[in-house]
Amino acid sequence: MRRLSTRDASFQQQFSALLAFETVNDPALIQTVDQIIAQVRELGNAHVLALTQQFDQHPAQHFDELELSASQLQQAFEQLEPTVRNALELAASRIREFHQRQVQPDWQYIDALGNTLGQKVTPLDRVGIYVPGGKASYPSSVLMNAIPAAVAGVQEIIMVVPAPKGELNPLVLAAAHLAGVHRVLTIGGAQAVAALAYGTETIAPVDKITGPGNRFVAAAKRAVFGQVGIDMIAGPSEILVYAEGQNNPQWLAMDLLSQAEHDEVAQSIFITPDAELLEQVAEAIEAHLVTLPRAEIARTSLQNRGALVLVKDRAEAVKLINQVAPEHLELCMDEPEQLLPQIRHAGAIFMGRYSPEAIGDYCAGPNHVLPTSGTARFSSPLGVYDFQKRSSIIYCSPEGSQSLAQAADVLAQQEGLVAHAGSARYRS
Amino acid sequence: MRRLSTRDASFQQQFSALLAFETVNDPALIQTVDQIIAQVRELGNAHVLALTQQFDQHPAQHFDELELSASQLQQAFEQLEPTVRNALELAASRIREFHQRQVQPDWQYIDALGNTLGQKVTPLDRVGIYVPGGKASYPSSVLMNAIPAAVAGVQEIIMVVPAPKGELNPLVLAAAHLAGVHRVLTIGGAQAVAALAYGTETIAPVDKITGPGNRFVAAAKRAVFGQVGIDMIAGPSEILVYAEGQNNPQWLAMDLLSQAEHDEVAQSIFITPDAELLEQVAEAIEAHLVTLPRAEIARTSLQNRGALVLVKDRAEAVKLINQVAPEHLELCMDEPEQLLPQIRHAGAIFMGRYSPEAIGDYCAGPNHVLPTSGTARFSSPLGVYDFQKRSSIIYCSPEGSQSLAQAADVLAQQEGLVAHAGSARYRS
Repeated sequence: MRRLSTRDASFQQQFSALLAFETVNDPALIQTVDQIIAQVRELGNAHVLALTQQFDQHPAQHFDELELSASQLQQAFEQLEPTVRNALELAASRIREFHQRQVQPDWQYIDALGNTLGQKVTPLDRVGIYVPGGKASYPSSVLMNAIPAAVAGVQEIIMVVPAPKGELNPLVLAAAHLAGVHRVLTIGGAQAVAALAYGTETIAPVDKITGPGNRFVAAAKRAVFGQVGIDMIAGPSEILVYAEGQNNPQWLAMDLLSQAEHDEVAQSIFITPDAELLEQVAEAIEAHLVTLPRAEIARTSLQNRGALVLVKDRAEAVKLINQVAPEHLELCMDEPEQLLPQIRHAGAIFMGRYSPEAIGDYCAGPNHVLPTSGTARFSSPLGVYDFQKRSSIIYCSPEGSQSLAQAADVLAQQEGLVAHAGSARYRS
Repeated sequence: MRRLSTRDASFQQQFSALLAFETVNDPALIQTVDQIIAQVRELGNAHVLALTQQFDQHPAQHFDELELSASQLQQAFEQLEPTVRNALELAASRIREFHQRQVQPDWQYIDALGNTLGQKVTPLDRVGIYVPGGKASYPSSVLMNAIPAAVAGVQEIIMVVPAPKGELNPLVLAAAHLAGVHRVLTIGGAQAVAALAYGTETIAPVDKITGPGNRFVAAAKRAVFGQVGIDMIAGPSEILVYAEGQNNPQWLAMDLLSQAEHDEVAQSIFITPDAELLEQVAEAIEAHLVTLPRAEIARTSLQNRGALVLVKDRAEAVKLINQVAPEHLELCMDEPEQLLPQIRHAGAIFMGRYSPEAIGDYCAGPNHVLPTSGTARFSSPLGVYDFQKRSSIIYCSPEGSQSLAQAADVLAQQEGLVAHAGSARYRS
């Protein structure tokens, strides 16, 4: 595994190269996806069914066979093994509790002139949640996407999840039941995104689409952006673990591997001022890899995108953390709260030695849908705020409007907008 | 001007056709813009200068001539006529006052297990604000984009504004001074967007780009989305005026015209249950058009995209309002607060007869950058929240981590992620 040291003259160059990751915009992919979207808009359910038969080898003969009933979801939930059911319920209730604190209230105030100004908050009417099928079909993603929408008060949450050959992960259905999903359609790919964005005979168009997917899904989300809202187009997942003081290298190694096992382009970066710890972590990673089922994926990820970085001190570490703006940041140290004010950019910050990313991935409460590839510089974890929007309120009194109307008149004239000026002047 | 009535059997079809507006994704435009971006990334300032000389006929010979000094901005402000300066200062202080209420605080809580969870809010480091040049160069847009960023605590606000033939609107510079803009570069087009997103020798890359622009700017913003954050790609501006009871048709007509004078594709819709008022407004529009300087633009807009809609009652009006999800909504009626809870989608809601859109455009306080083309269904006015982002905080205690680690272990095993399970189990 790659070792870097800030003492090396070419460090910054090497470190920047490590972070570089650019998604290629494949014109052929974009064209294929645009065509699928256009055809779904034209032909509706019939085309979605045809593509689902073709791409997913789904046995359905009619479109309505692609929809699951509420009782199917409930049944999946009730048939769960008690241990699994309890874990899922714990996760759901903690996610709900955390997200309830994100609900934004309306507010208003009366200014010195007697005008009322404010902000009204309203949930989105309908949202679509994309859940990947097959091996990457994660019940935790269902909870993390659907619960914030439910807490926001969204009236219709439509989940789409492809079912290759008609097969579904019962845990995903159980999670949909728990999370308050209103409809589940077993469709996927660009055709599912198009059906959600534009609607069909039986699907009302949604206002926003969230959730991860393959490159067809990502391209389709990018294409319908503007028609509907979307969450960020997710890049590969990353973790940055900073450690100082007494640490168990086994724990740190496993935390780094938990990211690396996701996929070959996931990124695990370890930063420490402790050269001995760095080597111990390197050894522990090798040892764990021997028994890890997904060792091949993890090894590729660590070799191509991982790094063990030796820094001179904590201040240097902070600079690197803010440069990376990591999706997940672990601060494995005493009194991590002392470092916190200096951390400017991170999706989620795991404080101390008992807060591994894995707990946050499932059941701590905060969302696991986080900004990747440095986008924590400007974006936030998925939250209730993504399923609510604001309207400004402007309520002038006859007296209160006067001085405002006069100022608006002056400024509108400067901008050459005479009807604006006239409209203001009527109220002055 | 087009008249529609909900009594007409084909009303919904006509109304939907009226609202339809699709921006064409021109492949040639996208290719041109992609090429400009690639060249700015490769060649930096030299290429930005060359394109500025070419497209803007700017006389600058060196890149540093394209930057304005703080004293130039201050001078522009000090040389304003007192009436204009006062109006601009009133607007800036009211916009600041409103937006200060949008600042989001950090929060955290301790759960029943003794774990600390929360959300940390941080301003973006650097933002770029695009201000169109020439005739559409509006000082109000400078205030509306820069003040929320300044209130959020953004450390570097870089404004770009093209200066055709080197000419600049002094009011725009004065507004930049008032709003707290840190740097002003007289560049524009896709090259300015590229320079902001990727940085050059003398421009540090920004984290977000906001502000309106022509189709090159819009395409460039779409292309750099992901590398940086962007605000919405704005469509044509719209107003929906709902009136009932005693109203002055002159006022209503001028409010509709204030939108129509913006540009040929702007949209003004009037809705009322009062057939007599509808005809009075139609007449007043015609009368105003005789003297309006921008009458030709307004007439085209009203003919192609405007409508006077007669509804049976208030309930029908509410349904249409929510269908349109207008950027600007005026409720010209007694006790508009009674209707407010039923309004689900609107960018800004102007309540009563003394709150014309024009006041909101300049100096009421709320932002005039609002979701267009029905995107108020899922998006919000530009605000301080667009220049802040959140990081989740997860701080488990050794005891508090145990039951969470156990649940994470169970769920990770179900998802086949063994390193996740192992990482959790170490803390259980």
